[in-house]
Amino acid sequence: MAAPKKVGIGTVAFSNPPVILATATIVGAKEGEGPLANTFEKVVEDPYYGEESWEKAERRMLQEVLEKALAKANIKPQDVDYLLAGDLLNQIISANFVARALAIPYIGLYGACSTIYEGLALGAMLIDGGFAQYVLIGSSSHYSTAERQYRFPTEQGAQRPLTAQWTVTGAGAILLAASGAGPRVTHATIGRVIDLGSADPYNMGAAMAPAAANTIVSHLSDTQRRVEDYDLILTGDLGAYGTALLHKLMAEYGHDITRNHNDCGLLIFDRGKQDVHAGGSGCACAAVVTCGYLMQQFQQGKLKRALGVGTGALLSPLTTQQGESIPAVGHAVVLQA
Amino acid sequence: MAAPKKVGIGTVAFSNPPVILATATIVGAKEGEGPLANTFEKVVEDPYYGEESWEKAERRMLQEVLEKALAKANIKPQDVDYLLAGDLLNQIISANFVARALAIPYIGLYGACSTIYEGLALGAMLIDGGFAQYVLIGSSSHYSTAERQYRFPTEQGAQRPLTAQWTVTGAGAILLAASGAGPRVTHATIGRVIDLGSADPYNMGAAMAPAAANTIVSHLSDTQRRVEDYDLILTGDLGAYGTALLHKLMAEYGHDITRNHNDCGLLIFDRGKQDVHAGGSGCACAAVVTCGYLMQQFQQGKLKRALGVGTGALLSPLTTQQGESIPAVGHAVVLQA
Repeated sequence: MAAPKKVGIGTVAFSNPPVILATATIVGAKEGEGPLANTFEKVVEDPYYGEESWEKAERRMLQEVLEKALAKANIKPQDVDYLLAGDLLNQIISANFVARALAIPYIGLYGACSTIYEGLALGAMLIDGGFAQYVLIGSSSHYSTAERQYRFPTEQGAQRPLTAQWTVTGAGAILLAASGAGPRVTHATIGRVIDLGSADPYNMGAAMAPAAANTIVSHLSDTQRRVEDYDLILTGDLGAYGTALLHKLMAEYGHDITRNHNDCGLLIFDRGKQDVHAGGSGCACAAVVTCGYLMQQFQQGKLKRALGVGTGALLSPLTTQQGESIPAVGHAVVLQA
Repeated sequence: MAAPKKVGIGTVAFSNPPVILATATIVGAKEGEGPLANTFEKVVEDPYYGEESWEKAERRMLQEVLEKALAKANIKPQDVDYLLAGDLLNQIISANFVARALAIPYIGLYGACSTIYEGLALGAMLIDGGFAQYVLIGSSSHYSTAERQYRFPTEQGAQRPLTAQWTVTGAGAILLAASGAGPRVTHATIGRVIDLGSADPYNMGAAMAPAAANTIVSHLSDTQRRVEDYDLILTGDLGAYGTALLHKLMAEYGHDITRNHNDCGLLIFDRGKQDVHAGGSGCACAAVVTCGYLMQQFQQGKLKRALGVGTGALLSPLTTQQGESIPAVGHAVVLQA
């Protein structure tokens, strides 16, 4: 029984591919002015979202999308087997406090900006393994909470280099189920942590590109598939510089992904008009583009099979201060119409 | 196939209970002077462990136990399907950087001090679900890294109230396998996040006791077992005050656990002699006591069936500053000889 599910170390093919029953998205004002505006369900103009702090605003967004995904599928919190969630804040407080409100058995994850894909891969395993009927997955980020935690006090208005990316404000949620109608998760590839020595915290794309490449190459090798087998390969938040590096690295591995690759961090903002430097980033970047844009592409029949690759930079401000380079990870799932 | 594995929301009974093939432990000087000294494999006197920072010392400890657990079972990193790890430091940097060194497909977890049990529960699901043959699980903490991140600069020498607990320095690792000899993981109960309004970050035991009680009661109800069905119910790090509260709460639920309950945080230090106030805490507390003491009890035939309950307080310094109470979680697994 075990053997056919494993197609390589880190890669599994699901026996009964779990279904994405519903997704939900919410974003901030800047994301609502971007090219994907019409793929998001709700745009919140107030960065505080009526709360007393940015952190509480982020938390409210995460709770709202999780509840909305459940409501869309007419599933109650008490029917959900597990909540898998995480975010960028220290001690993943957005996820922890939302888990308190929902009272669903909770598995806290930390995969930095790859979290929604880490959750999707793991959730699909829990369902296909027979341990769950419904798994709820969510992730969030907020420009102002991330900025003050990872970089400078926001009041300081520090300049950022052009390789820096803009943390997406928003949250995305996915309700995964053992059966029903919707795109299916057919495979998952859990990534290894890769670090080629990039140490610039203002160029996360460069740090993450090798991890994305490693995961994609492992996935193709494990599944014996080619790049052309996917209508779209969608990475999480490599941005402009990371994307260029990924294309170059993949070419070195003998794969041309330039025709069918895109990146959530490039899709979500108009870099020419929105002053986001190298593009979007943050847990919400992959989450809202996957739960919004990607799902819409499936619903409209524009995609049949996509490889989504969440990317995460696994540093902390302290590791940078202690002179470390930046480890990164990429987790991939195959979504099929 | 799916149905018999689920015995309740959050609780699963494994079809082919995964085996703890090997464990490994390492602790700091204070732990090496405590009552469990002879259950630990290595005691490190130098809090820096020859490294340049406490964080790097903690990381080195985590890497060492993971490699040791593999070596004991004669398994190579490349044969391991997944590494599940996490710790208390922001962005779980101990786990992330060790994952970089081991190059095993990596699932980062955050469950605060419950992490080793979160990993054990999840690892058992991945193996029993057919997605892995070997899963490596690890967690670590360090008094000095935790103290300066969560409380005061260590140089300040701030006084702590008697309800405070002492973060254990050390790391524990578990190699879980689909087959072999060793205690088996027969059930897992993933906890809900519980918060009864306790807001004192110097009394984590009080915040976590209700979560532990909720998980134990759910577990007993889901499995239709009684307290007496376990030779030992071992909680992670409730300490003296949390343990007293747990006993009281369990009594209110109609269960007397006073005869067969113990707590890793009470076992690891001699509170009379070691000036640790309410007992031990931290990710390493449950990890080293489970991987050391508990495994030894099984090896010596003193235990046939134990319920281990990792407990985690899911706050951050920032949530306390923003006036929040403390959400907590407990994850349980059944270990059987």
